[in-house]
Amino acid sequence: MNDKVVLAFSGGLDTSYCVTYLKDEKGLEVHAATVNTGGFSTEELEEIEQKAFELGAVSYVTLEETETFYAQCVKYLIFGNVLRNGTYPLSVSAERVFQAIAIANYAKQTGAAYIAHGSTGAGNDQVRFDLVFHILCPDIQVITPIRDQSLSRQQEIDYLSSKGVVRDWTKAAYSINQGLWGTSVGGKETLTSHEALPDEAFPSQLKKEDPSEVTLHFDKGELVGVNGHYQEPVRCIQYLEELAAPYAIGRDYHVGDTIIGIKGRIGFEAAASYVIIKAHHQLEKHTLTKWQLYWKEQLANWYGMMVHEGTFLDPVMRNTEKFLDDTQQNVTGTVRVALMPFRFQVLGIESENDLMSSQFGKYGEENTGWTGEDVKGFTKVMANSLKIYHAVHQTPLEA
Amino acid sequence: MNDKVVLAFSGGLDTSYCVTYLKDEKGLEVHAATVNTGGFSTEELEEIEQKAFELGAVSYVTLEETETFYAQCVKYLIFGNVLRNGTYPLSVSAERVFQAIAIANYAKQTGAAYIAHGSTGAGNDQVRFDLVFHILCPDIQVITPIRDQSLSRQQEIDYLSSKGVVRDWTKAAYSINQGLWGTSVGGKETLTSHEALPDEAFPSQLKKEDPSEVTLHFDKGELVGVNGHYQEPVRCIQYLEELAAPYAIGRDYHVGDTIIGIKGRIGFEAAASYVIIKAHHQLEKHTLTKWQLYWKEQLANWYGMMVHEGTFLDPVMRNTEKFLDDTQQNVTGTVRVALMPFRFQVLGIESENDLMSSQFGKYGEENTGWTGEDVKGFTKVMANSLKIYHAVHQTPLEA
Amino acid sequence: MNDKVVLAFSGGLDTSYCVTYLKDEKGLEVHAATVNTGGFSTEELEEIEQKAFELGAVSYVTLEETETFYAQCVKYLIFGNVLRNGTYPLSVSAERVFQAIAIANYAKQTGAAYIAHGSTGAGNDQVRFDLVFHILCPDIQVITPIRDQSLSRQQEIDYLSSKGVVRDWTKAAYSINQGLWGTSVGGKETLTSHEALPDEAFPSQLKKEDPSEVTLHFDKGELVGVNGHYQEPVRCIQYLEELAAPYAIGRDYHVGDTIIGIKGRIGFEAAASYVIIKAHHQLEKHTLTKWQLYWKEQLANWYGMMVHEGTFLDPVMRNTEKFLDDTQQNVTGTVRVALMPFRFQVLGIESENDLMSSQFGKYGEENTGWTGEDVKGFTKVMANSLKIYHAVHQTPLEA
Amino acid sequence: MNDKVVLAFSGGLDTSYCVTYLKDEKGLEVHAATVNTGGFSTEELEEIEQKAFELGAVSYVTLEETETFYAQCVKYLIFGNVLRNGTYPLSVSAERVFQAIAIANYAKQTGAAYIAHGSTGAGNDQVRFDLVFHILCPDIQVITPIRDQSLSRQQEIDYLSSKGVVRDWTKAAYSINQGLWGTSVGGKETLTSHEALPDEAFPSQLKKEDPSEVTLHFDKGELVGVNGHYQEPVRCIQYLEELAAPYAIGRDYHVGDTIIGIKGRIGFEAAASYVIIKAHHQLEKHTLTKWQLYWKEQLANWYGMMVHEGTFLDPVMRNTEKFLDDTQQNVTGTVRVALMPFRFQVLGIESENDLMSSQFGKYGEENTGWTGEDVKGFTKVMANSLKIYHAVHQTPLEA
Repeated sequence: MNDKVVLAFSGGLDTSYCVTYLKDEKGLEVHAATVNTGGFSTEELEEIEQKAFELGAVSYVTLEETETFYAQCVKYLIFGNVLRNGTYPLSVSAERVFQAIAIANYAKQTGAAYIAHGSTGAGNDQVRFDLVFHILCPDIQVITPIRDQSLSRQQEIDYLSSKGVVRDWTKAAYSINQGLWGTSVGGKETLTSHEALPDEAFPSQLKKEDPSEVTLHFDKGELVGVNGHYQEPVRCIQYLEELAAPYAIGRDYHVGDTIIGIKGRIGFEAAASYVIIKAHHQLEKHTLTKWQLYWKEQLANWYGMMVHEGTFLDPVMRNTEKFLDDTQQNVTGTVRVALMPFRFQVLGIESENDLMSSQFGKYGEENTGWTGEDVKGFTKVMANSLKIYHAVHQTPLEA
Repeated sequence: MNDKVVLAFSGGLDTSYCVTYLKDEKGLEVHAATVNTGGFSTEELEEIEQKAFELGAVSYVTLEETETFYAQCVKYLIFGNVLRNGTYPLSVSAERVFQAIAIANYAKQTGAAYIAHGSTGAGNDQVRFDLVFHILCPDIQVITPIRDQSLSRQQEIDYLSSKGVVRDWTKAAYSINQGLWGTSVGGKETLTSHEALPDEAFPSQLKKEDPSEVTLHFDKGELVGVNGHYQEPVRCIQYLEELAAPYAIGRDYHVGDTIIGIKGRIGFEAAASYVIIKAHHQLEKHTLTKWQLYWKEQLANWYGMMVHEGTFLDPVMRNTEKFLDDTQQNVTGTVRVALMPFRFQVLGIESENDLMSSQFGKYGEENTGWTGEDVKGFTKVMANSLKIYHAVHQTPLEA
Repeated sequence: MNDKVVLAFSGGLDTSYCVTYLKDEKGLEVHAATVNTGGFSTEELEEIEQKAFELGAVSYVTLEETETFYAQCVKYLIFGNVLRNGTYPLSVSAERVFQAIAIANYAKQTGAAYIAHGSTGAGNDQVRFDLVFHILCPDIQVITPIRDQSLSRQQEIDYLSSKGVVRDWTKAAYSINQGLWGTSVGGKETLTSHEALPDEAFPSQLKKEDPSEVTLHFDKGELVGVNGHYQEPVRCIQYLEELAAPYAIGRDYHVGDTIIGIKGRIGFEAAASYVIIKAHHQLEKHTLTKWQLYWKEQLANWYGMMVHEGTFLDPVMRNTEKFLDDTQQNVTGTVRVALMPFRFQVLGIESENDLMSSQFGKYGEENTGWTGEDVKGFTKVMANSLKIYHAVHQTPLEA
Repeated sequence: MNDKVVLAFSGGLDTSYCVTYLKDEKGLEVHAATVNTGGFSTEELEEIEQKAFELGAVSYVTLEETETFYAQCVKYLIFGNVLRNGTYPLSVSAERVFQAIAIANYAKQTGAAYIAHGSTGAGNDQVRFDLVFHILCPDIQVITPIRDQSLSRQQEIDYLSSKGVVRDWTKAAYSINQGLWGTSVGGKETLTSHEALPDEAFPSQLKKEDPSEVTLHFDKGELVGVNGHYQEPVRCIQYLEELAAPYAIGRDYHVGDTIIGIKGRIGFEAAASYVIIKAHHQLEKHTLTKWQLYWKEQLANWYGMMVHEGTFLDPVMRNTEKFLDDTQQNVTGTVRVALMPFRFQVLGIESENDLMSSQFGKYGEENTGWTGEDVKGFTKVMANSLKIYHAVHQTPLEA
């Protein structure tokens, strides 16, 4: 067994502690790796790299996984219009799995004997990381210094200080996690059930007050253009975020069950993902049949839950992706959306696959495909089973 | 067979035609009945009554069904957080069933040989009415003059004019249907897929700009008080509507499949129902277990579909109500909501049944119920099945 | 509009009436077509052809659809282990759709202005045929002489007799429908709820009493070999039927809701399909994950319902097939089955993809993948949510 | 903290070890308790009691829970026709939860500081027991001597021998677990995927060859009589078992996922439960609507899974029971079943609530409730959505 450890490194207090601890106390050769799933700028990544080396890492690598994250996950969250518990676009949880997969693959590739991550014993992330590592690299040993020693922030700071690492470790008022698919905001108020985050806790402040309109171009369910500019979906998402975030759109709270069984609450802002999901859903309502919409909802709801809970590697997820993929072949068209301060409105869609075509009869207006007599026969036969039921039994409802 | 016909009467062109036609051409004794499920004021009902007699009805009755509609349906739409296709609170469709049931019961009670309604052959309502009549009073014959003769508005007007009934039948720009649970707005733009309704098409215009806060009190899932005023749920809904409607909250479009198979699109505004559903759902996220939330969603989604499609009398609906009822025993507490122009935000909840109690460990913070070692065992065992799967097979995901 | 009519012809009384009636009364040029989905022998088809010409058809064709039926439907019924209401392998209902599709395509190809079928107004088949014709060839007019004239058998016989067509039209004691996927047996007892069919009503009588063993070879979910003989799946099914039918295996009753709303009851025998489904399911239990099994069941249950009810052409069916297809990539292996009079028993499976491999720990025996301590942590964390729930509330169960 | 330990005692090697170990090594006062959920005779219980005292227990109690087990669980397994993975009536798994609940309540009642059970670290039972104890009595410490010390049978025997406890501990060829709802048979062949249990491994050997008929009387879903003898449901089940077991009915294998993630395989025999479930299901097919059958299946499938996996105490289970209860109000009637060697056949049902009444039209025969014209209208309107879909798109199926 060698002494190489691959550390999932973010440059924060926890993982800074890990570098020093793994090197000095465990005598390991620390290979720091940061996985970018859309939340880091080039400047931030350079800063993180510099920190890694300052702390004593023998190597550092940025694993660029944004495209992979989109192609293997975000795409399906859009196809499925996934909002956990009706609200949360999985802004952060979905990324963790891809960070873990990238770390696992990197560790296998470098032949490391150990993987380390800075998770505490309190949240979902430890489970997401552990699960992926157990599954993808069961022979690599996982070390979690903060969890293993139940360390407090102060204990970590004191240890680092004793090693000569002195920085401003002042904890930010809120814990912010940013990625391609949104940003979570946790702390203070979100630890209660009844308090709301103050406006200033959200990274994207209202910067634009005049309403504007944006046009989204979808091709087989994917966002391939915005306002006539066609580019890679990831770029489209990022461009839409630039247009929508100044309106402070897409803020809400996620309240739900953590993988470890307790309830959790977190704020988020997710301008682009909210707008995309609502626009995509509207386009689907025009282009899919009733039962396609129904079963997509069932499967996507479940898909989102498993992504959230870290069991992304179950093969049922691949099966589900095949289903979702196949439903999208006609989800092509344009959706107009009005952007306004703190809100947006889907205005309408245009699609060659629109099933609400006036040539087949307009709802509540003329109808060419059937007659009133046909509907009378329809309702008569449709009533049969319940007519029999209510003939056999007493009417269950009294007026 | 007698010559009594009970006519579902609204005072509009279609049902006015019916009174005259049934009386003069069919030689029937017309008993007009208007069912109020929350959409008519006392003045409107008096006006409708007067019209009925003017047209030649031999009797008129208002069937007051708002409480019944709430107790047998709206309550469950709230329990189930029902938004059809993720959007539509069933503002109008749910009422039709209760109007039909009331008419059926009234017809049976009066011993009428016929029931008539003014539906055309183009929409959902004909199906909702026919179904209920076939099921609840299969021996009473249903007459639908407009549908049977495929009449145009002009033909109806001409006929009435020939009978000396002259009124201003100018069609309103939009067809508005109002009830306890919201108001639908159809016409012009909603007949297309891509155009949005102009602001002035909505009945409730923005009348209040200053944000305010409202507190909703839920008891076993029902809204029993608003801002500390406790009264019957129906009154609470109406009071909340008064508070929220001036903000022009709860506007959107429903696009979906009609019962007769074509796609339809309709605008709606539903301030109270939107606020109640979102607040109620938030309270549930704190007080129900994960699998309660999951199965409620499955069942309620289906329940809403069947309400919408007129098959409310299937006994599976009663079974589902028992399920929903039972889930609500702990959904008691208070929800604070901020009301703002065109939008609202659920701020937080307070409940004695809140499962996110800090005494059991705060998410991402201290945890008293388990150790990091416990979670390590948890994830190890939780990983077992997928660890085996991925050992037997190749890893399906390449980075 | 030309005077060509394509008639779905079986050689029985109803469709014999149709030939004569369409020719003589309607003055149409009758093109008879029989669709074989596995239920007709070459001799039977020759006999049918001869009858068609005798009755005055101007052309006759056998549309051989067994392979198509297998590839586009039976395969998925196996993948999904579809037994309607837990019992019925859709022995007959699934074939109707493929017969209708073949007739529709043939009619379009021949440029016929009309399609005719011999359905009465009493059953499911009229709906299955009509639906497919409305959907696939909406411009071709459908004629249903028996249904349109509400004819009794005697009226048909009298008419044919008047036209010089005299045959032995004695109705068989039971109506038997045979196909690739099983045989239905209806009449007398099945029209009641409480009587069972006599043994002799079933076509396959017990002819073999000594038990034997059969080995089924599956490749990606398809039956590709029996007892070491590898051939096309359709041939494998037919060969297995030869081996299993002499044991009078796979008899039962289907009780369910018809498309037109009444309840129906029918006997069936389906030796090969029953053995295949049970064997395939057992192989899946060893090779799929828990959630694959779960979601397959949900989707396949629905898939079977839509096949049964004639809505096979909904695109959600294609989406579902993609899901099912993808689940089968590891369902490869061998299943041993014991055949005995009136019953069979799946004995065991062998597969390289078996997830119940002893190398990962045997159930209830040694375990190498985790420790007792791990399970203690697992259950502790797994208990969290309910521990909290029961701390907040009273224990709901009293001993 | 006192030194009282309540031990779930069965008299076997593992729990015998526990008595001695807890007394001698832990210095605890051992209170042995055996929970009877239908698997023990009075003689067996007396023998178990004697063993407990011989081993040094200071008290012994039999907790008679058969009625509770029926009323709170088996009843719902019948209502839901629960067969796990389509096969397994949860013969053993369901009982474990009730044994754990009874032990937990007894421990709380006696004020014990500890609970002990003899589970190893290899199976499902440890999880079922631990979960219930964590949830219902989180303050009582759980001790699992066999799991904690990873003991082999020989180590246990040697220890007991050193303490003077010498018995014939020869392991039976198969591990047999008997209860009200069936008997499981594990060992040797079931540890493989491909071998079948020999006939003699099953406790109930074929003792009766002549077919007989049995009549089951259901009242609101419960079995309240057999062959005209009406008694408590538990007695009916036991009486039916006496009638059916001599035919060696209800044998099969369960293959499925354990709670701890590995696949497991076990044989079982469950004559009464199989006959009851199939008879009950048949009665439901006649008395429930299509969507009642559909949703019952969804919910009951899930219910069975949660029972099997030990999460019976989730409140969603109580909600589901309310649903199931409500569906059973019309499931009243009589079912005739033929019993034959190794198999049975449901012959038919009689019920006042039978919806397949000839007065509403016989399937495929005369029909009084609707006309052929009605069905033509029905299919025309029913085809609408797919007609539009296939007009907009290419036909997806090529013949």
